Amino acid sequence: MRVSDNILVVLVNSSHPGNIGSAARAMKTMGLSQLCLVAPDQFPHEYATSRAAGADDLLDNARVVDTLDEAIADCALVVGTSARGRKIPWPLLNPRECAERVLPESRRHKVALVFGREERGLTNDELARCHYHVHIPSMPDYSSLNLGAAVQVLSYELRMAQLAAQDALSVPNEWDAEYATAAELEGYYGHLEEVLRQIGFIDPANPGQVMTRLRRLYSRQRLDKIEVNILRGVLSETQRSLRQPPTPPTEE
Amino acid sequence: MRVSDNILVVLVNSSHPGNIGSAARAMKTMGLSQLCLVAPDQFPHEYATSRAAGADDLLDNARVVDTLDEAIADCALVVGTSARGRKIPWPLLNPRECAERVLPESRRHKVALVFGREERGLTNDELARCHYHVHIPSMPDYSSLNLGAAVQVLSYELRMAQLAAQDALSVPNEWDAEYATAAELEGYYGHLEEVLRQIGFIDPANPGQVMTRLRRLYSRQRLDKIEVNILRGVLSETQRSLRQPPTPPTEE
Repeated sequence: MRVSDNILVVLVNSSHPGNIGSAARAMKTMGLSQLCLVAPDQFPHEYATSRAAGADDLLDNARVVDTLDEAIADCALVVGTSARGRKIPWPLLNPRECAERVLPESRRHKVALVFGREERGLTNDELARCHYHVHIPSMPDYSSLNLGAAVQVLSYELRMAQLAAQDALSVPNEWDAEYATAAELEGYYGHLEEVLRQIGFIDPANPGQVMTRLRRLYSRQRLDKIEVNILRGVLSETQRSLRQPPTPPTEE
Repeated sequence: MRVSDNILVVLVNSSHPGNIGSAARAMKTMGLSQLCLVAPDQFPHEYATSRAAGADDLLDNARVVDTLDEAIADCALVVGTSARGRKIPWPLLNPRECAERVLPESRRHKVALVFGREERGLTNDELARCHYHVHIPSMPDYSSLNLGAAVQVLSYELRMAQLAAQDALSVPNEWDAEYATAAELEGYYGHLEEVLRQIGFIDPANPGQVMTRLRRLYSRQRLDKIEVNILRGVLSETQRSLRQPPTPPTEE
């Protein structure tokens, strides 16, 4: 399921067409579909198409407008990406908070996520048109994400928020076998200890901690039924070989 | 503060040098520093340097090795990126769980995050060398993130986990003025109502809901002291103009 067709990604004055393509690809991997370009330097462009890598449907459907006002006219929530430390502080979200706010609102009305120019971001005038600013918490001394990477992070958080809302974030691992039961594990530990005595690894008079450590090792693993069968098969085969040692290769 | 110098990003057989540069930039924005390249097709390369955009120190310090085994030899935890649906399922994390597991372990020992080839990811042999697989939950019908974008997402989650551990994730908004007190707000509402009566917007005999709606509007905003002063200044100036109407321009 797509995150929402009500969420609009707006790129303002992008100068590198390759970045427009990266942004489209990033959006599509996370289920976003609506791209709007405000006065892009070069678009359409072969670099945009090649970097979109299969997300060119988003480029084909992209709206191209002259001003940010046109882009966001029918949006009831507008969030602009921003570096820290504006002269007049604005209500500020991190990308996770942004997704948690945007996703539920997008079920009721259009929402815009606005990204600025590669070198200079959004102007103060543009930021003043936003209800919230969102800041990707990068390192203070090297803070500038590539435009496509910034779109990827915000889109990813929207997808995570949607999966969380569907309670589908931590999919139970699709395992290919059922866990072994306690009785099956005890059967294995008993068999293992028997073999370790037979080969002289455990001295019955002075068994030490070996079995406890081996129990801890295997219980950490949550062994499944197939694994217990494999391990017991190894033990049985070891015992068979002990009874009937393999014929050594004939010397020449 | 850097996330950790104990966290190693390993790129296996990357074919496009530009992606190596993007990965370095993505890492550096989030405070990661250790890059290891397993048999890259082309490295060093001008495309890597240009896409690194200031993260070329990571490229200069990158270790280049022939095999994954060499890359991860001294790592006590190895996590490999993987698409869903391997033949033999492996313990699987999402990027957030990955960060929550990797970050604390990185304080004690080296950890590798392993990324596969652009087109084919990691081989089954390579994935079998990992303790965990991590899957970025992209759309099933368009699941392939650009390599740099994948590095950006996992690096971002590590940085978020670190900020959360430092209780620095939701920085209280640095606001430039203190909130107004209840008494200051009441002073404003009284003043506002007085002016709205003077200009005839509120009929004292039948005031309706106007003041309630205006109270709700401004209380939603958590007005600060400067804002209350501006709003009261507008009211005072309105009253002054009512007492002494501005001289209309002389007709020519």
